[in-house]
This record gives sequence, C-alpha cells and structure tokens, in this order.
Amino acid sequence: MANIKEIARVAGVSITTVSRVLNNHPYVSKEKRAAVLHTIEQLNYTRNMNAVHLITGRTKAIAVILPYIHFFYFSVIVEGLAREALLAQYRLILCQTDYRPEEELKVLDMLRNKEIDGVIIVSTALQPEVIEEYTAYGPIVTCQDSGERRFSSVYIEHYSAFRHGLEYLAAKGYHNIGYCEGRKHGSSSSIRQSAYRDFLAETELPFLEEWMIFDCITEEDGAAVLHRLLNMTKRPDAIIISGDHVAAGLIIEAQKHNLRIPADLAIIGFDNQPIGRLLGITTIDNQLFEMGACAFRIIHDQINGDGGPPVHLKLEYSIIERLTV
Amino acid sequence: MANIKEIARVAGVSITTVSRVLNNHPYVSKEKRAAVLHTIEQLNYTRNMNAVHLITGRTKAIAVILPYIHFFYFSVIVEGLAREALLAQYRLILCQTDYRPEEELKVLDMLRNKEIDGVIIVSTALQPEVIEEYTAYGPIVTCQDSGERRFSSVYIEHYSAFRHGLEYLAAKGYHNIGYCEGRKHGSSSSIRQSAYRDFLAETELPFLEEWMIFDCITEEDGAAVLHRLLNMTKRPDAIIISGDHVAAGLIIEAQKHNLRIPADLAIIGFDNQPIGRLLGITTIDNQLFEMGACAFRIIHDQINGDGGPPVHLKLEYSIIERLTV
Repeated sequence: MANIKEIARVAGVSITTVSRVLNNHPYVSKEKRAAVLHTIEQLNYTRNMNAVHLITGRTKAIAVILPYIHFFYFSVIVEGLAREALLAQYRLILCQTDYRPEEELKVLDMLRNKEIDGVIIVSTALQPEVIEEYTAYGPIVTCQDSGERRFSSVYIEHYSAFRHGLEYLAAKGYHNIGYCEGRKHGSSSSIRQSAYRDFLAETELPFLEEWMIFDCITEEDGAAVLHRLLNMTKRPDAIIISGDHVAAGLIIEAQKHNLRIPADLAIIGFDNQPIGRLLGITTIDNQLFEMGACAFRIIHDQINGDGGPPVHLKLEYSIIERLTV
Repeated sequence: MANIKEIARVAGVSITTVSRVLNNHPYVSKEKRAAVLHTIEQLNYTRNMNAVHLITGRTKAIAVILPYIHFFYFSVIVEGLAREALLAQYRLILCQTDYRPEEELKVLDMLRNKEIDGVIIVSTALQPEVIEEYTAYGPIVTCQDSGERRFSSVYIEHYSAFRHGLEYLAAKGYHNIGYCEGRKHGSSSSIRQSAYRDFLAETELPFLEEWMIFDCITEEDGAAVLHRLLNMTKRPDAIIISGDHVAAGLIIEAQKHNLRIPADLAIIGFDNQPIGRLLGITTIDNQLFEMGACAFRIIHDQINGDGGPPVHLKLEYSIIERLTV
C-alpha cells in the first residue's frame, strides 16, 4: 500500500497538499487536487485512519458503557443514541461490561488514550467520584441522576417518579403495596428502594420485608413472582414493578391461576413497553428513547463546541393510566 | 502531555526501548523497564492509542452492522457477540444503519482504512457480491446464509426451518395456512416467502394472496393482524409468524375477541423468545445467542490465526412444541 509520502512524490506536490486533499481542505488548486486524486487511483492508496486520527486528534467515535443489551430498558436507550449517531455520522463503541468495574475503567481509559472522543454511561457499577476523575480527558454523559457532578447527565428523577406511582396506588384505595425490583444494588434501584420505604413509613402503610421482591429481570421472573404472592400468608393488594415486561409475566401467569387484575391485584409498571400497551398495563413512562437521543446530542455538542460546563438535563416522566389499577 | 521521544530522553534509553515497554515486549532489561516506567509516572504520560494502532496494525475492534438494536432478534445476537467480545477483550463498534446501503459501505470502508480488525454483518441491505470485494481488507462474517462466499457465515437454513414449520402444521391437520412476515424485501424474508409459496404449491394447499401479511415488526403489529384476520371472508385456520413477540401480540388480542388458540387459529412462531415461553407459543428456535457467539469466535480466530479459507457454520434449528398448535 502506498503511503502519503509516495503519493506526494509521484504527483509532484508537497505532503501538505496530499493531506489537504485527503481531508477535503478548501485551499488546494484544481490542478493539484486532480493530480493527487489521479495518483491515489493509480497507486490504489488506502488511508490508514489511525494516522488520520493521530493527526486530527479526533476519532468520531463514542464509547457506550452498559451491562447488557438484550433488555428493553438498555436496548431502547441505545436505539435513541444510535439514531442520533447515524445522523451525526459518529461511531458507537458498544462496551458491554456486565457491571464489572474493571471493564468499565478500561473503557474510560480509552478516553484517556484518545481512542474515542467521549463516553456515554447508560448504567454503571462505578461510583460518581471515580467517573469525575476522567472528565479531564474528554466529555462524559451518564443516563442516571448522579447529582450535580463534573460530568453531564440526562435522567428522570427515579425517587419522585416512584413515589408518584405509589401515591397513585394509595389514592386509588390500595393500602397493601408490594414492590418488584431488578438487581438489588444498582444506583437507580437503591433510589427506588428508598422511595418505597420512605413512602410507606410516612403514610404509615403496612410494610412487610417479603413484599420487596428482587432479581426480577425477565418475563419469567415476573411469572415466578405470582407464585411467591400466592404462597404468602398476607398478600399485597397492589404491586409496583420496575419493568413492564416483568409485569407482563406476572399478568400472564395470573390469568392461568384465575387471579383477577386489578380486582385481586393492582399493578403499575415502568418503561411504557409495547407489551404493556397490549396488555393494558398502567405504567410510568420514563422516556428511554429520548434519554438516549439527548445523551448523544449533549456529548456531540461538547465534543464539537467549546466544552463548557457539564449539562444536567432532567426529563419528565408521566403516569399512563390503563387497565391494571 | 509527554510523548514517547521525551520519555526516551528523560529515561536515558532509546525510543525502541520505550516502545517495547509500552507493548509489554519481553526483551527489555529489568533496569531499563524500571527507568521507563518511573519516567512515565513522572511525566504523567498517556499513550495515544491511535499511534499504537498505527504501529501495530491492530485495533482490537470489530464493527457490527445491523439495522436497529431494539428488536429481540438483533439484540440477542449482539448479546451473544458482546459476551464473547468481553472475554476476548475486543471492542464492538455498533453500526446501526437502518438498512441504508451507503451507511453499510462506510462501515466496510473502515475495514479498508484499518480502523477495525474485522466486520460482523448481522443483517444487511448489501448484495453478497459487494461484500465479497471487501474481503481483501480483512475478515468478514455474516449471520445469514449467503451461499459459499469468500466471507464466512454462521446461519440457520431459513428455507428448511420454515418448511419444517409448515409441514408440522399440515401434519397436525391444518390446511389453510397464513403467514406473517417482517419487512418484505429482506434476504432471509425472501427465502421464507419462497419456502411458503413452494410448500403450498407442492402440497396443493389453498393459497390466498391476502394470507401473506407483511410489515409485522412489533407486538402491536401482531394485534393488528388479528383484526385483518377477523375481516377476511375466508380465514386461515393456522398461521406461521416470523417472531414470537408478533405472535404474542396476536394471541393477546385474540383473547380479547374470544378467538380460541389453537381451536380457531393455530400459531407457530420463531425465535424462542421469553414471552413465547410464557404464553406457551409453539416456536422454531433458531439459536440467536449462539449465532452471535459463534460469529465472534470465527472472526476472532481469523484475525489472530493465519486467516485461512472462509468458514461456513450451519446451526441447527428445532421446533419447540407448546400449546398453540
């Protein structure tokens, strides 16, 4: 493969001119441009983009940190990100880390090593203090509310969204409220747990430890929740579930066991998923697609603008009333 | 930021020695290694990985071409890919192209430009002949059966899988068989359409143009299919659907309209999705996770081995009998 020096020699121009032609720089005469392009064709030259990145200091690539891709929550955020990335002609480097801190740090090291122009963190096992250290190397945007940090964020307020859902259930006359959650120790998950405990304590509604059910990740976990409920001595009359697909699993299993929704058990879900629309699940819409799209637009502005202070964008959630409450 | 030349000067070693230390090369004396590492710490040196890639000719990055990420089929293949990529410490560059050929060509150009070590094509709008031209620049693996091409592939035989599903329905006594498909002009989709037409022609079973229903992408499209069926003068008594989530939408809507499954309408789906397991949908398992994992392992071997001829790996499908046939 010919290199840039050889092209300059054959075309009879300077290396600078070749470089300008390759980068579509305006200040090159028609004749010289034609000579360079002709030579390139002759020599079948291919640019080594690593050299281009080295020279320009830009890669037009952004890394995305997330634990896994095949869950609705993550895949819809990435869909929002990817649509904007395509419009802006940026590459997304998918860094699926399974919540392993050492893997997430490696991704942040890519920013330090100039392999990428920025990092979008959809969900992470790292503490905000650790992430802040890397803001020296380039823009970082999280899709979680981490407080007013030195990196940007786009988020919904999980505490208030979750409380809103609980208030909605209580206002409808349900006073024995259970709770289904994904992983126990996530940052958003911890916030929702606080919202649940705080609300029950303040309103003096009954609280039973067994009414908090964790590790509800899939539809089938939702179906398993039904059986746990059926085996309880005292059963909740309503349940808030952080994921419509888990709620769907519970509802489908409930039909098989003639448990009526909402008469025997009211349900409010999260995420406004298509399966929830079909089953008429009352849900909290947390604007996942929009969250991904906004995260990209923020990081794109920071890469291509003057940097500026971090942006903290709060998106509004809404309760969508359907048939399960 | 200090560069490699400055480190060499301060540490009193050659540039080659610094480079060897950075790349964990074995032939460096203990003393020199210590001097370099000490100097790096002193100067707070960060490697520019673009320079490393330029020197090594390897990026440890693989591009993945797919139209969108938030559908089960694609997200599970990518999950399989990503698990293997994490184990092998490779980066996946997610190139979501919305089936635009010009975008897909840009990704293949990344291979030519040495920005990546290989390309995995999950689903594409490009013709196999076009993809073949790029095999000169590095390994390419598709997750579709493209015949014995100059690039590798891992696939299930959609023609025979689909026919097997139709034979299964016919053997169970269903002779008026409809068909729901995603996009009309995909390569796998075209194969399935041929399988459907061929089977009905060979067995002389009734064929009605309106029994082929296209653009069934989401759960809600499945619900809409129910209404089309209800409005038909002559309705099929069974239907084969390329996606369990679409089948789920149809089944949930059917319950609302007291259409009994399978008594009034038998259903066989595709993909073995969790929602299908819950609803007891008879389905064809096409090993999506395994397909992603195998695609990665093939490309990894080709990048790190001697290249060798393309690999064509056929995975086996299976019919999972449940309650809807």
